[in-house]
Amino acid sequence: MKLLEERILKDGTVIGTEILKVDSFLNHQLDIRLFNEMGKEFKRLFADADITKILTIEASGIAIASIAAQYFDVPVVFAKKYSGTNMDKDNYEADVFSFTKNTMYKIKVSKKYINKEDKVLLIDDFLANGRALLGLNSIVKQAGAKVVGAGIAIEKAFQNGRTEVEKEGILVHSLATIAKMEEGKVYFK
Amino acid sequence: MKLLEERILKDGTVIGTEILKVDSFLNHQLDIRLFNEMGKEFKRLFADADITKILTIEASGIAIASIAAQYFDVPVVFAKKYSGTNMDKDNYEADVFSFTKNTMYKIKVSKKYINKEDKVLLIDDFLANGRALLGLNSIVKQAGAKVVGAGIAIEKAFQNGRTEVEKEGILVHSLATIAKMEEGKVYFK
Repeated sequence: MKLLEERILKDGTVIGTEILKVDSFLNHQLDIRLFNEMGKEFKRLFADADITKILTIEASGIAIASIAAQYFDVPVVFAKKYSGTNMDKDNYEADVFSFTKNTMYKIKVSKKYINKEDKVLLIDDFLANGRALLGLNSIVKQAGAKVVGAGIAIEKAFQNGRTEVEKEGILVHSLATIAKMEEGKVYFK
Repeated sequence: MKLLEERILKDGTVIGTEILKVDSFLNHQLDIRLFNEMGKEFKRLFADADITKILTIEASGIAIASIAAQYFDVPVVFAKKYSGTNMDKDNYEADVFSFTKNTMYKIKVSKKYINKEDKVLLIDDFLANGRALLGLNSIVKQAGAKVVGAGIAIEKAFQNGRTEVEKEGILVHSLATIAKMEEGKVYFK
């Protein structure tokens, strides 16, 4: 998606060969106009999939998923990393390792909000090692529902996330795919 | 707002006299159609305020703020509770006590994303004791910017949040205001 690639080139910051900071428009300050264009593109890519629900993960996925959900006219469910005392006790759970936070955490989704008839689109901001998507996929499988695919804003193709996720039979569409990052520059695939 | 009140009566669950669970449509599963109506109502309530930015707090505020932002055509910034290693080091910070999680946490906003020209609308899902709004207000003040008001989905008027927040000179508009909860029932103001 040209618009997102151009925005990454304009406002993204590369640190080393692994880290791309996009907090000015994607995951701290949020450019909602851009998210609308991204939502339309997800709809175009998954037009034929008859999606009933979008599943994402707190916190960065929520805004992208919510804006996109308008084009599918379906509810969003977000997996919780940090559940309060009010959270249901009857949840689907999966363990996810976060490389940016260097910690393992448990994601939880109440059993009430995914049922076996659901056709679920997973949405997230980044695909790198794929751990978040695999965790979400595990939750959907526990519910007996179907993952229709994964819509990703930015894929780091130099990490093994896509391979891991495709092994599970998940169709992945990324709006911007980064082949490599070097000396402060981003190279798209 | 009639639509939200009706939804609370239909799908909310009252626990004791203090806790209202609305995770089927507001803060775990998200009814994006409802959020659109809420966004339009926030725009109507703050139509004359010339807002330049919406500030919210992860995670439950993000979707409501993002959908509402479409009607104001402004970016959203969300304060982070759980900052990764990629987070800027140069942040505005405030301490917030969470009663539902019974813990104090630090919220952070990068100094890049609020500047002194900003007219900021605060948005959150609940107003109860007001601690989250006061934390967000502190961050906006640190930036030298102006808080135009606070848009809240559900206010628990039997707690002291509004009083505390109004002491700081903040105009509060809530879409549903709960006077009391008793024997599983919600009574609106």
